Amino acid sequence: MLFNLAFYVALMAQAGSAALSAGRRNMDLFGVCSLACVTALGGGSTRDVLLGHYPLSWVANPYLLIVVCVAALAAVMLSRFMHHLRWTFLLLDALGLVIFSTIGCDIAIAMGLHPIIVIISGMVTGILGGVLRDILCNDVPLVFTGQLYAIVSIIAGVVYFTATKLGLSYDFALVAGIVVGMGLRVAAIVYNIEIPKFSYRDQR
Amino acid sequence: MLFNLAFYVALMAQAGSAALSAGRRNMDLFGVCSLACVTALGGGSTRDVLLGHYPLSWVANPYLLIVVCVAALAAVMLSRFMHHLRWTFLLLDALGLVIFSTIGCDIAIAMGLHPIIVIISGMVTGILGGVLRDILCNDVPLVFTGQLYAIVSIIAGVVYFTATKLGLSYDFALVAGIVVGMGLRVAAIVYNIEIPKFSYRDQR
Amino acid sequence: MLFNLAFYVALMAQAGSAALSAGRRNMDLFGVCSLACVTALGGGSTRDVLLGHYPLSWVANPYLLIVVCVAALAAVMLSRFMHHLRWTFLLLDALGLVIFSTIGCDIAIAMGLHPIIVIISGMVTGILGGVLRDILCNDVPLVFTGQLYAIVSIIAGVVYFTATKLGLSYDFALVAGIVVGMGLRVAAIVYNIEIPKFSYRDQR
Repeated sequence: MLFNLAFYVALMAQAGSAALSAGRRNMDLFGVCSLACVTALGGGSTRDVLLGHYPLSWVANPYLLIVVCVAALAAVMLSRFMHHLRWTFLLLDALGLVIFSTIGCDIAIAMGLHPIIVIISGMVTGILGGVLRDILCNDVPLVFTGQLYAIVSIIAGVVYFTATKLGLSYDFALVAGIVVGMGLRVAAIVYNIEIPKFSYRDQR
Repeated sequence: MLFNLAFYVALMAQAGSAALSAGRRNMDLFGVCSLACVTALGGGSTRDVLLGHYPLSWVANPYLLIVVCVAALAAVMLSRFMHHLRWTFLLLDALGLVIFSTIGCDIAIAMGLHPIIVIISGMVTGILGGVLRDILCNDVPLVFTGQLYAIVSIIAGVVYFTATKLGLSYDFALVAGIVVGMGLRVAAIVYNIEIPKFSYRDQR
Repeated sequence: MLFNLAFYVALMAQAGSAALSAGRRNMDLFGVCSLACVTALGGGSTRDVLLGHYPLSWVANPYLLIVVCVAALAAVMLSRFMHHLRWTFLLLDALGLVIFSTIGCDIAIAMGLHPIIVIISGMVTGILGGVLRDILCNDVPLVFTGQLYAIVSIIAGVVYFTATKLGLSYDFALVAGIVVGMGLRVAAIVYNIEIPKFSYRDQR
């Protein structure tokens, strides 16, 4: 139940920050809702399509779409206060990254897939929504150039998967993944930890 | 049969206007045909992939691809006359939006999905081709920033779905959807009706 | 076995050139690996999703992901020598284009699909990885504007498919596809053969 609460809070946080991205591109309210749905639900949908795991979550439970749209429109109405909530959003985004990653791991585990695919499934669930958002906003995806983000998803997934493999309880594995993942993500923001960048210029 | 005629006309109109988009980006004739196929068939393909509805229409009926490519190349040959046909294309595009939406609704109805998903299925079928076109042309999707468009698809879908649910004949439901949808779309173009936009600037 | 060798060489070449694309966009090492995976495996994955052909190759064989990431990181380490290898990469890229295309044809043949879809399946496998790379790098896909490339995939697919239909041995069909495809691609590069471009400006 705590997990469900965390899931919905994370979903709404992703919808809210997607709404702000839409606003930076002067999208209309339909664009706001669409971008919020793609961002909040696109990671899980991409995972399901890649794994052939049907029906997709929002097809089975369409009310997810309504939750996301309401959260996005609420973010529009409250947008002038949003800059006070920067840290709240960063924390909720980190929570969402980890929660979504563990959901992705669970689905791949339930499908009996290889441990590498379990971790990839978690990562796709965690980060692909943001990648799709950036593509629709016509940006190079932030996750390929910024601070530790996808790596947080991978490490949280490894911790979660290892804990379940060791026979630890689901709750313990989840909490372990969240503590490690959120700790790492917050550390990455505070200390501005980045993965080494690769810059290449064509020589002639 | 009238429906089939309208479907092919709409498909060719989408292919033709995609060809002009390709020309604005100086694409080669392969790019023209590819962009036309993605635009004309990408909405239905995205819907089928999201719903797990296989085989995709053009896989089952590959001649659709040929119809689309021929229409695109015809648009290239006739491109210098195209600006005279602006209203024809706008009307055919509106027709296509509504026809494609009702097809999407039908497929979701046949799969026994929730009414919300029926409408979403119609909308994805109606607008996703254009979104994919804009992504391939490296633009922010027009549908997120412009005049009433996706909303037209949604309203046409609601009218169509409600009419079928009320037990009205298929033909009547289709005509009702087309009349309402095209009327709304033409009104949106003539009176420049837009959804309110959301503009957000980061404050520091 | 020779085919397997050629496949892995081509996969690694695609990963390596994707790594250089990532470097041109200053991506971090996670972005480098992601872009390499999308480029090297995205064509086959798109084909499988469109055809409903599950599981995807890298889900069934996750070590493909590791091969691709190692090749991408090797390209990063050797990047200052890469400009000496321009022709090597162009040849390996041409080899990959043809090999991937024949794999795509094989899968559609095995699924009993229409000859048009067999060729399209080959083409999607051959070129979509590069299209996805260009979308993620925020470019208009090169394949829509440049030298003969997709056409090479189509012609190699037609040669390969025709040869198998004529009852020739698999090895002969493969070699025929490779010789014709690579010959055409090299000729396109050397003589700068392009498909006619279509340029369209809106008139008012």
